[in-house]
Amino acid sequence: MSIAPADGPALFIINPNSTAAVTRGIDAAMAPLRMAGGPAIECLSLQSGPPGIQTQQDVDSVAPQLVALARSLRPRAAAFVIACYSDPGLHAVREAVDVPVLGIMESGVLTALTLGQRFGVIAILPGSIPRHLRAYGAMGVQARLAGELAIGLNVTELAQYERTLARMTEVGRRLRDEHGADVIVMGCAGMAAYRDPLQQALGLPVVEPSQAAAAMAIGRIKMNWHGA
Amino acid sequence: MSIAPADGPALFIINPNSTAAVTRGIDAAMAPLRMAGGPAIECLSLQSGPPGIQTQQDVDSVAPQLVALARSLRPRAAAFVIACYSDPGLHAVREAVDVPVLGIMESGVLTALTLGQRFGVIAILPGSIPRHLRAYGAMGVQARLAGELAIGLNVTELAQYERTLARMTEVGRRLRDEHGADVIVMGCAGMAAYRDPLQQALGLPVVEPSQAAAAMAIGRIKMNWHGA
Amino acid sequence: MSIAPADGPALFIINPNSTAAVTRGIDAAMAPLRMAGGPAIECLSLQSGPPGIQTQQDVDSVAPQLVALARSLRPRAAAFVIACYSDPGLHAVREAVDVPVLGIMESGVLTALTLGQRFGVIAILPGSIPRHLRAYGAMGVQARLAGELAIGLNVTELAQYERTLARMTEVGRRLRDEHGADVIVMGCAGMAAYRDPLQQALGLPVVEPSQAAAAMAIGRIKMNWHGA
Amino acid sequence: MSIAPADGPALFIINPNSTAAVTRGIDAAMAPLRMAGGPAIECLSLQSGPPGIQTQQDVDSVAPQLVALARSLRPRAAAFVIACYSDPGLHAVREAVDVPVLGIMESGVLTALTLGQRFGVIAILPGSIPRHLRAYGAMGVQARLAGELAIGLNVTELAQYERTLARMTEVGRRLRDEHGADVIVMGCAGMAAYRDPLQQALGLPVVEPSQAAAAMAIGRIKMNWHGA
Amino acid sequence: MSIAPADGPALFIINPNSTAAVTRGIDAAMAPLRMAGGPAIECLSLQSGPPGIQTQQDVDSVAPQLVALARSLRPRAAAFVIACYSDPGLHAVREAVDVPVLGIMESGVLTALTLGQRFGVIAILPGSIPRHLRAYGAMGVQARLAGELAIGLNVTELAQYERTLARMTEVGRRLRDEHGADVIVMGCAGMAAYRDPLQQALGLPVVEPSQAAAAMAIGRIKMNWHGA
Amino acid sequence: MSIAPADGPALFIINPNSTAAVTRGIDAAMAPLRMAGGPAIECLSLQSGPPGIQTQQDVDSVAPQLVALARSLRPRAAAFVIACYSDPGLHAVREAVDVPVLGIMESGVLTALTLGQRFGVIAILPGSIPRHLRAYGAMGVQARLAGELAIGLNVTELAQYERTLARMTEVGRRLRDEHGADVIVMGCAGMAAYRDPLQQALGLPVVEPSQAAAAMAIGRIKMNWHGA
Repeated sequence: MSIAPADGPALFIINPNSTAAVTRGIDAAMAPLRMAGGPAIECLSLQSGPPGIQTQQDVDSVAPQLVALARSLRPRAAAFVIACYSDPGLHAVREAVDVPVLGIMESGVLTALTLGQRFGVIAILPGSIPRHLRAYGAMGVQARLAGELAIGLNVTELAQYERTLARMTEVGRRLRDEHGADVIVMGCAGMAAYRDPLQQALGLPVVEPSQAAAAMAIGRIKMNWHGA
Repeated sequence: MSIAPADGPALFIINPNSTAAVTRGIDAAMAPLRMAGGPAIECLSLQSGPPGIQTQQDVDSVAPQLVALARSLRPRAAAFVIACYSDPGLHAVREAVDVPVLGIMESGVLTALTLGQRFGVIAILPGSIPRHLRAYGAMGVQARLAGELAIGLNVTELAQYERTLARMTEVGRRLRDEHGADVIVMGCAGMAAYRDPLQQALGLPVVEPSQAAAAMAIGRIKMNWHGA
Repeated sequence: MSIAPADGPALFIINPNSTAAVTRGIDAAMAPLRMAGGPAIECLSLQSGPPGIQTQQDVDSVAPQLVALARSLRPRAAAFVIACYSDPGLHAVREAVDVPVLGIMESGVLTALTLGQRFGVIAILPGSIPRHLRAYGAMGVQARLAGELAIGLNVTELAQYERTLARMTEVGRRLRDEHGADVIVMGCAGMAAYRDPLQQALGLPVVEPSQAAAAMAIGRIKMNWHGA
Repeated sequence: MSIAPADGPALFIINPNSTAAVTRGIDAAMAPLRMAGGPAIECLSLQSGPPGIQTQQDVDSVAPQLVALARSLRPRAAAFVIACYSDPGLHAVREAVDVPVLGIMESGVLTALTLGQRFGVIAILPGSIPRHLRAYGAMGVQARLAGELAIGLNVTELAQYERTLARMTEVGRRLRDEHGADVIVMGCAGMAAYRDPLQQALGLPVVEPSQAAAAMAIGRIKMNWHGA
Repeated sequence: MSIAPADGPALFIINPNSTAAVTRGIDAAMAPLRMAGGPAIECLSLQSGPPGIQTQQDVDSVAPQLVALARSLRPRAAAFVIACYSDPGLHAVREAVDVPVLGIMESGVLTALTLGQRFGVIAILPGSIPRHLRAYGAMGVQARLAGELAIGLNVTELAQYERTLARMTEVGRRLRDEHGADVIVMGCAGMAAYRDPLQQALGLPVVEPSQAAAAMAIGRIKMNWHGA
Repeated sequence: MSIAPADGPALFIINPNSTAAVTRGIDAAMAPLRMAGGPAIECLSLQSGPPGIQTQQDVDSVAPQLVALARSLRPRAAAFVIACYSDPGLHAVREAVDVPVLGIMESGVLTALTLGQRFGVIAILPGSIPRHLRAYGAMGVQARLAGELAIGLNVTELAQYERTLARMTEVGRRLRDEHGADVIVMGCAGMAAYRDPLQQALGLPVVEPSQAAAAMAIGRIKMNWHGA
């Protein structure tokens, strides 16, 4: 899955849920970021995680497991990306390992700040929005937020590509036309397949946050800048 | 420990660390809030918690345990207070139980907003400040924050009352004189014994956050207003 | 009107307008908060006040009268609540008396901050909204405001329960669906009778601000924390 | 006191305190703003006001009197300036009369926003600072505030020009060097005589707020733009 | 064009685009502000400017030319107003000349802050909105912004008075009814002819920014307060 | 200077001043970011630029030239970085070319947001700070700013490595100890040689902004995400 030497330190993209299909979607999205001289990019599921991260309880429950996983991978790690739009355990993992650690929400939003003046976010579930708003507040970027709206589809419906794209497009249009968004962040991991058609439909830049985080991580690895 | 009927639902004050002395300090601080017709107030340690909550890893690690404990106590609970100034698991416990749940940071800060225009916070450890700042950002109250400074004493030193009070007073004066604080929040649980002398020394209102949270919880129990 | 000893210091809830029906509504709403060991709760109208507080001139005109009333009641007072959603005279009364003083706007908003991430406010008159926005700005909580909308009914129409509830529900739905509110504050005093049906209709927590303030005052009285 | 026709509508500068010396100081400061085709500028004391506005109670108590005075002067008024740095009754007077009404705090701050990026304010009394901060919050300009510090002189000391200037200079230097202010607002009325030496001593633009408000009022009168 | 002495220093209103019709519109709008004893008001086009300022490239390209023009006019200048709603070169011209320099966006917004609590802006082109939002952020006034919407007419359509007024009214109503604006700023120069009918149609104060800036400049000239 | 194929599209790092030594410093700092499969990284001076960007006039004067240069390089460009901490012409260049464009201030600050909670900035000249503050306001990240302080050395003094490092360290300590910064951004280009010793001296992560921007650009090139 990588053209970089298999034995160098890798960029680990950790999907905190246990659903392999999501991890596969993330892995496929990494293709453009795999380059000679760059880090190997390895995508993993948190085997002990829930099938999806939907509640604050889910977020909190995986954090200690992510710390443990990151510690165990540390000897082979150049950097970590936590690939769930709630950035579970982000600050704890940063404390635990001495390499760069990026969250996909954080990276997706920071990337959006360079592509437009007001970012809109497409969430899956309405119940996640207050949690995301708390994170934007902690990040201090609320003045740039146009709004966040949910597509509100359940798991079965999410499996239908056309239906999901239609809902994302509808919500994206509301963010653009009613809330004034000029850049869109997809508030979920593993849905990179929707990015191009969504961007075309909306006529606005669309940020896929796992790609955003991995893209930021590559250069960061070369500098090895990390906190604490 | 309570003059209210022992068999009614109780206000549970949960200390997320396992240090019984802290829990006893919190319990003693509840004395003025125990009243006829009010809820019984029961203070507990999280037995499985670390001796102190000092890092984000500590915060994240106790959250699932707090959810489990709150669920198990729910049949006897009128409300919960999470008595650690990092408000670990606050939003997860709110999801998990259908009674009021308050955190001492949140309640301490909200109480301070009614006592002064700019609140200063006295933290124990410098490493906790970024974590607290993220929380104030998530709460959206940063415009009211004068500053947060740490006393920077280790556990051994904290055991010395006079020394700790002297450091708290010194830091409180800096918050007042250099940062413009007109109300002080003690950024820790179980130190109610310092509140009165500190308030006297500073000439500013001082909020002890466990008392602030319990004081808010009593009325909230009567209304039984809770989220989600 | 109280089950607490009539001779102890009381929590005075002062309605700054002279309309007795409003005061009676507030008084009825206090029922759940009256408890054996708690303070007597006495609700008063400001006899010299206007029939309703509708303009900034109304707000400013009652402030000195509220100061005088609070001073005269001070010997019997454990705390004061100013029961008008413009919090008239709040900071002046705080200066004037050395017991806790809470305003219902302030307390209603602070309570909402613990029940949801973005609060919406249902005002009676559109002309009050700029005044309320100034207060949220002074409180520094605008990042948490989803929006404030008015039901726009006149006094005659307000007398009609069903019509008022229908308008409140309609405005509450707009706050929820268009503005993203996940908790609602009723921007008026004396309308506690609408709280339960409104909460049921909206599926969101609804804060009645006089109850919110009294609920906060009970614990505060026990601590006797006040500013200045 | 005016070179403009005595019978045209005038710009009334109302000093809400009863101290004639303050009004005379304001009047002298108006000299550069009196011009042939401009409005007559008349400075008045609120005879029924306190000798000085020092507390929130003072602020609130003069508001209704300012409304009454403005109403009585309205037939001869082109505009009003309320010349106290707490802007007492500003919004009430705006409701009451249909000509431009400006406060000196508001105008002083808005003027400062065009002269520097971060404004510092020199207050007389420390107790006024929380009140001023509430106003900056209501104005939504806190991101531009470097800080506000008080000179802390009592009335007797304020009568000493050199001592007052020395304290203002000292506080101005702290605002510049420790708080990063690049423009200073004098947080009081009737002290225009200190502006030039203070500006020279600090090397920063200094805004005298009564002049700032009157300067803004002249053009506003010509347009007759007012709210409500 | 001026009743003030032709040989005194003038207030120069510089239209950064080369379209004489716009400059004439601005000039006509100055009529009420020309007064005996006030400065001569001279309106100029930047001859080398583009026909209109529509992009960031337009904004940046005229800035050095505005500096050069202001320097050349300095011997005859009492103050400068830059009459384009993007305030091109505002801070550079401030550096370059030692007289007051005001931008019409800045002045329009500051004036609106005294006329309502939440300002809405009517832009011509949607593409200008992100640029304007950056400016409001730099000014630190976003908390007062209700929203900005574009009428989206092209140059040909803008020539039709009725159509333009109809679109402005429509957009103004959306700002008022959906975004909560209680004062409107016209986000363009040279359209003063629309102000009165727009204000009448909306029932809200409407700020024409070139007039707002010139009105502020007149008093500022008398004080000669400027930055740097 | 690059190990990537010389004929592929390059990442152009444009130094907007004409001082070759600065460009050489930037070029040397790119070493860790040059990798086999990554873009060639070419560093250029703007030949027509001033020797240094010190004023707003400097910033504005180079913007059109940067647009012209970027357009001329576009056929060979994968992305652009504007390597001056005032981000001159950033938004204009973004309009002009359809590849990613990053500014070093923007990228430096966004990178800092992932390394600490409050960033401090070390500027060269005090006069640049207001300009930088306007940019942070436009970016909407002021809540995360601890402060910005200048070392205040002139060009001659800057040539002395030890003296410059000593001043940077002194200013960095003030940002850390008095302003609460937990991450530092170097507010200048071409001083990468100071990063490591500064980081060691302060014990905080230090961001060199040209490296930060180039590091972000590499991944962005692979995704080719750009605005407009």
